[in-house]
Order: sequence, then structure tokens, then C-alpha cells
Amino acid sequence: MPKRVLLSETDLPDSWYNILPDLPAPLPGPLNPVTLAPLQPADLADLLPQKVIEHEFTQDRWVEIPERIRDVYKIWRPSPLVRAERLERALDTPAHIYFKFEGVSPSGSHKPNTAVVQAYYAAEEGVRRLTTETGAGQWGSALSFAGALFGLEVNVYMVRASFEQKPYRKSLMRSWGAQVYSSPTRRTEAGRKILAENPDSPGSIGIAISEAVADALSREDTKFALGSIMNNVLLHQTVIGLEAKKQMEIMGEYPDVVIGCVGGGSNYAGLAYPFLADRLSGERPRTRFVAAEPEACPTLTRGKLAYDYPDTTGLTPPLYMHTLGHDFIPGSIHAGGLRYHGDAPSLCLLKEHGLVEARAFPQTEVFDAAVRFARTEGFVMAPESSHGLKAALVEALAAREAGEERVVLFNISGHGNFDLAAYDSFLAGTLENPTVTDEQIAASLSDLPSPAASA
Amino acid sequence: MPKRVLLSETDLPDSWYNILPDLPAPLPGPLNPVTLAPLQPADLADLLPQKVIEHEFTQDRWVEIPERIRDVYKIWRPSPLVRAERLERALDTPAHIYFKFEGVSPSGSHKPNTAVVQAYYAAEEGVRRLTTETGAGQWGSALSFAGALFGLEVNVYMVRASFEQKPYRKSLMRSWGAQVYSSPTRRTEAGRKILAENPDSPGSIGIAISEAVADALSREDTKFALGSIMNNVLLHQTVIGLEAKKQMEIMGEYPDVVIGCVGGGSNYAGLAYPFLADRLSGERPRTRFVAAEPEACPTLTRGKLAYDYPDTTGLTPPLYMHTLGHDFIPGSIHAGGLRYHGDAPSLCLLKEHGLVEARAFPQTEVFDAAVRFARTEGFVMAPESSHGLKAALVEALAAREAGEERVVLFNISGHGNFDLAAYDSFLAGTLENPTVTDEQIAASLSDLPSPAASA
Repeated sequence: MPKRVLLSETDLPDSWYNILPDLPAPLPGPLNPVTLAPLQPADLADLLPQKVIEHEFTQDRWVEIPERIRDVYKIWRPSPLVRAERLERALDTPAHIYFKFEGVSPSGSHKPNTAVVQAYYAAEEGVRRLTTETGAGQWGSALSFAGALFGLEVNVYMVRASFEQKPYRKSLMRSWGAQVYSSPTRRTEAGRKILAENPDSPGSIGIAISEAVADALSREDTKFALGSIMNNVLLHQTVIGLEAKKQMEIMGEYPDVVIGCVGGGSNYAGLAYPFLADRLSGERPRTRFVAAEPEACPTLTRGKLAYDYPDTTGLTPPLYMHTLGHDFIPGSIHAGGLRYHGDAPSLCLLKEHGLVEARAFPQTEVFDAAVRFARTEGFVMAPESSHGLKAALVEALAAREAGEERVVLFNISGHGNFDLAAYDSFLAGTLENPTVTDEQIAASLSDLPSPAASA
Repeated sequence: MPKRVLLSETDLPDSWYNILPDLPAPLPGPLNPVTLAPLQPADLADLLPQKVIEHEFTQDRWVEIPERIRDVYKIWRPSPLVRAERLERALDTPAHIYFKFEGVSPSGSHKPNTAVVQAYYAAEEGVRRLTTETGAGQWGSALSFAGALFGLEVNVYMVRASFEQKPYRKSLMRSWGAQVYSSPTRRTEAGRKILAENPDSPGSIGIAISEAVADALSREDTKFALGSIMNNVLLHQTVIGLEAKKQMEIMGEYPDVVIGCVGGGSNYAGLAYPFLADRLSGERPRTRFVAAEPEACPTLTRGKLAYDYPDTTGLTPPLYMHTLGHDFIPGSIHAGGLRYHGDAPSLCLLKEHGLVEARAFPQTEVFDAAVRFARTEGFVMAPESSHGLKAALVEALAAREAGEERVVLFNISGHGNFDLAAYDSFLAGTLENPTVTDEQIAASLSDLPSPAASA
């Protein structure tokens, strides 16, 4: 048995898998943020490329990947699938632990899987500029890389706190030619308003989205790009799971449990949905699906399933999702990509139907798992991905208890090269485990939008 | 034609290639640092594992790779070989540009190719601790990773200036469980002496080697590990070129020119020597070999071929090499791995016989090439590797001038995720091009050791 399965580029999927037609119930659609009536595709026309809007609403099970996008995927795809035998031995478990490794992309995570698609269609449709928001910087990096390849000017509104604390993410984006702004900026009405009220505002994802959206709407040649939660993003990420299925087949195994971390849900859906298709069709009725999240931001485990805004200021279409409230502020954890108040609607629906289990972990247990992994399998992974690893360890240890040869598959969504300050804190014993009370959640859920009667 | 060739692990070489028996002339051996008479293998017995000493002196053309080392290589090897078609189009060149990509290893460079070998043999021979020096941190990271896998305590003496300026490299080593000291330390006589003279000493590679050697010699359970210039290190690195030969064969091409950056020579020898074997055997008499170095530290282009100490303080066996003098201090450039006063003896001999050409480049041209590459091929590479890229661009543009379909192969020895401050300086226009005068070189060459009459 090989340790690592590397497919050749002829094995690169030629279509993305769309789970929408296979869901166990119809997916409640997004709302118009102004009228709160059901959103029409045309409502998004000023904001997103036409083809991206099509991908958002399509009910086609398979969506063909254009040749020029496959050409770009080939820079780092297919990504490796690896059997973690050293980790298995260290855990003394009969479980077989596999990981899919998305850290090999130029920006170091799974994010380019959708960034190159959004950039490609924008360029095809004559767009010259893209705007986006970024927190810790993974998404902004991915879009900067993608924009460089298709000749687009990428404008990233980066949350001020990260802009100042993570200078190297900013440098990476600029190396690809992007403009990076410390948000709130004086470039938009929204930014100027915040700065007038509080010149020292550290910014937030919500503010940065507002600024990026305002920038895109203010110019004919500009569109906006988003890196998670939307259907089109999840669709593009399914290349991960489609490759992993072929790779598991080469290993002669099929996972008993498919695991990943969830911030907005895109890396997890990317890995899990192609396997979920087999469960939904009845072909693999016993495969389990585990979504891992931080205790500090427990959207799937403790959030409410309701319509809520994806951004803090209510400029974007409300989605029907597990939410902690659009003004929920999670405790300060290092997994910046998991500090988000909501989740992708399709993932929420699957969780509601018992097809996806959710688990929340405290920060120190997650880092303990990551260090254990680094010292056996070598790779130092992102704190986000370490949540999936932690869930995989729980499964592997349960398999040992049960004496079962359980097959565990999890996703490493990105490498940890930009997160080493967090490892430092963990090794120094200064890492904390922020939690959240029911009262805090109830308070931030008090302000949800009410769908119009027609929704 | 595929863009990227990924071999399966069954294609991993089962032996390393040793160029020593194929060199066009006998290689002058190292000297005993005390007597300056020819060094005997036994002189190294307290310092290095026995098997590493064997690899240093062997004349066998092929040296078998133990199965347990191949098992570790499989974590990231075979590494990809990629055709840079987007770069070719951007340059409008008929040249075919290929790169081998060593940035996929857990520590991000080619260094683990030898680190795992040295750690494996040390563990096999009952060694419990390894010591080493590191400047920018690539080598220290690689040995920390390797040590973790074989249960060794790794002690890294890190040059104080880097220890303070590159905190994340230090964090990475600690994540793998290594002890990292800011050198000069109070742990060794050499360190204490330097600190007594100058409490604010920024340290140097020479001092750090002295400390690591002293530490290793002071304890029965400890050996020393070195990451470049020695024959055994170059031997271990030939997995790069052996894989690349198979990959080029799959592409149906053979390189007209094989290129890499040279600090001590290990990544370049690793890629080039298996191809050089074909030139030395007469099978491929016209293949060219180009070694790229910084103008700020022009060892191959302007150094003297003579015996000199690998370390600054003269504790280590003098080698017959191109040197700028063991107390030469190069200008401050970001390619820390290329700021070394000497080169591997076999590479120097090949250069002397006209088999390897050397080229020196100014820092800004090198970064300009790296940014161009990032914006076409995606990957942001280390400043060291960018020297090889720059030489590849020179070849590709010459091919355009000549209207030739030249096949160019170069090595990306590592990714640039820990070098983004350097990219920042380049993009801000504040990067300088330090050079060195003939007088400076002459001054630092005034203090070379004289071999004993018997040498």
C-alpha cells in the first residue's frame, strides 16, 4: 500500500458536484437584504459575475469545469492524499487515518479552488477589478493569486487588526500585485462613518464586507468575490472530495467517517459532499460525517437555525443558516477562519437532518493535537485545520476502545506557516480557551431579520 | 503533455548517486584542522555518526537508501516537476522552462533530504542528542523535523541576529520539539568567551558552528549535523536529480541546461549531479550546468580555489574549495542561505574543469524575477531559489534571441513563506544591491591555512 496517493492531472475532475438536487429537503433560498423577500438572481447582477450567479442557483448535479480553470488547477492539483501511519502507530489505534492536504496550493490553503473560478469568470465577462474582504488573510491571498493569473486588479479590504498583526499575509498579497487596504478605510462611505465615530476602530469582517461591496457597487468595471458560505463557493470546492474519492479507491478503502473543520463550511463541504452523495443515494448508508468547530464560536452545535445576514451591517442577502447572530463577537482564538457567526445553508440543512454531526473543541486540545501531528507526520498545519485533526483523533481513539479498524478521512485545509505565533503561545502554555455563555448567544440572536410574508 | 509530473512512491530512487568516482580528477581531501595533514575518517568519529563518515568518504557510485529513510521521504517525495508554460508565454520564449519544486517538504526546503538521513543513522547508532547551527533557520528546521521523527533531542544554535529577527523559524523548530538557543550562548566556552568580549554580539554562523561542535564533543550521547558543503550531504540530495531525470523522461525531454542557486552547493548538486553523470560519461556531452550566486557573496565567480576552514574560528576540517576567506562578511542580503564564504569541494572541482558555469546576480534583479514568477506560475519562492530562477530567465531570453527551443531546468529549493519581509522591501523599492571590492576579498583571503607538507 502506498503512503501517499498522487493522482496525475488526467484524474483532475472535469465537473464540480452540486449537492443541491440531492439534498433531503428543499433548501430555503436567500432573501433580498432590503425587502427581505426571496432573492432573485438578477438582484445580484451588479455585485457578482453572471456565471457565478448561475452557479449559486443551479440545480444541475454536475457543472463542467472550463479548460482554462483546469489549467490553473494543475499548478497544484490534484493535491495529495496521505495515510498517517506514523500517527496511527503513535496512537496505537487500529484505525486507518487518511488526510487530504490542501496546503500545497500557492497561497497555502483550499481557498484558490474557488478564487480562480471567480476570477476567471470575472475576466471573461470584462470585469477589470475585483474587491473582497479578508480577516486573517487566507481568502485575500487566494484571490490575489487568482487575480494575478487572469490580469485583474484585486482590492482587498483587510480587517485592520489583522493588517497590523499579520504583516506577512499583506506582503504575500502585494507580491501577487494586489492592493491591500486597512479596513475601515476612508475610501468608502461605510468606512468613513465608522472612522468618524471611532478613529481607532480595529475593524471587523462585517465592516470589511460592507466596504468591499460598496466599492464594487460604485464602479462599472468592478465585481465582488466571497470566499465561503455561498452555494457557488461550496460547489467549486468539491474538487477536493472528488479527487479524494479516486484516491481512497486506489487505497482500496472507503471512509467510515469524513471529517473537517467548519468556519463558513467551504473546505468541509468540498471534501465531504462527494462522499455524502453516496450516503444520500443509499449506496453508502452508514458513512458518518463530522464537522469540527471551536468552542469559542459554536455555530453548528449551539447556533439557531434562522435567517440572518452574512455581514454585520446587513448589506448582504440573509441566508437560512445556523447563526450566533450577525453581531456576535467570538472570543479571541487563533483559528481566525473559524471565527464566523454563520454557516453555509446546505451544510446546516444536512446537520438538521442528522446527516452531519457537529463537535466543538477547546483551543488548547486542538493545538495539542496539531503538535502531536507535526512530531509524527511532519506537517505543521493551520489552527483551523487542527480542529478537523482533533475530531479525527477522537475517532481514532474511539476505534481503539472498540477494537475496530475504522477508516477516518480528514481535510488539512491549509499549512500553518503564517500561524507560528499561535504555536508559540501554545508551547509557552499561555493559550486560553475562550467559551461563550447561553446569555451571550441569546443577546446576539435578538436582532435577526424577519423574512417578508412572501418568503 | 502534462503540466506537472508527479511520480508515485514506487519511483522513489532506491540509491543515492555519488559523483566522486566519476569526477574528471581526484578530489583533494579535507585536512585535520589541528595538524593540517590529510584528515582520516577516524578523526571525525567523535563528531559524526559512523555511517555519515562512511558516506563522506565512500567511492561507491551508488549508495543504497535504507527502507526506513525511504518511508520518511514518502511524506513529501517524490516532489513535483512542473513545466512553467505561463512564464514561457509571458517571456514570449521558445524555451521550455521546467522547475523541480522542493518547497513541498514539511520544513519547506530541500534540507530534510539529508536531515532525515543524518538523524536516522544517529538514532540507529544510539545517539540521543544532535547539535547543529542555523542562520536563517532552514537547516535548523529540517533537522528539528527529522529529529522529531526518530526520537532525538535536537539542539539548534541559532545566530542571535536571526533568533531575534526571525521568531517564526524558531517557533517552527520548537513545534517539532527542538531546543533553540540564541548563539553566542553561555552554554559553551566559545560562547562565553565571545560574550565576555562583546555582550551584544549578534553572533555568526562561524560562532554557532563552534558552539554546536563544542556541545557535541562534550557529551558521549551527542553528535553534530551539518546541512551543506560536505560530500555526504550532496550525496543525500541527489534524490532531487534522480527523480527529475525520470520526470523529464516522462515529459519526453532532456535539459539543455540545468540550473540552481549555490550557497554551499547542496541543492544544486542534488539536482545537477545525476544529469552531470550523463555528461561525464559522454552520453550527453552538450548539456550545460549553471550555478547562480549573489553578487554580494561571489564565491564561485570571484573566490580563490584553496584550502580554507568551513567555520570562522577554524575548528572544522579545511576543505579545498572556492573561498572568499573564512572571515569574509558578505553584505546584508535576504538570501541568507547564500551568504557563505565557501562551496562544496566537488562542485568547485567541476567548475574548475569547465563543467559548471557560475553566474552572479544583484539582489534586485533576483527579486524582480521572483515577483514575475509569482504572478505567472503562482508560487512565491525563497530568495535563495530566486537566484536559480534569474539564471533560468537569462537562458530563456537567450533562447528567444537565438530562436532556439532550449530546454531549461531549474530547482526551487524552497518556498518564500518566511521571507515576505524581503518581498516587502523589494516592492517598496528599498532593496539594495550590496557588492564587494577586490580589496575586501584580498583582505579576507590573507588568512588561509597552509596544508602540512604531507597533504
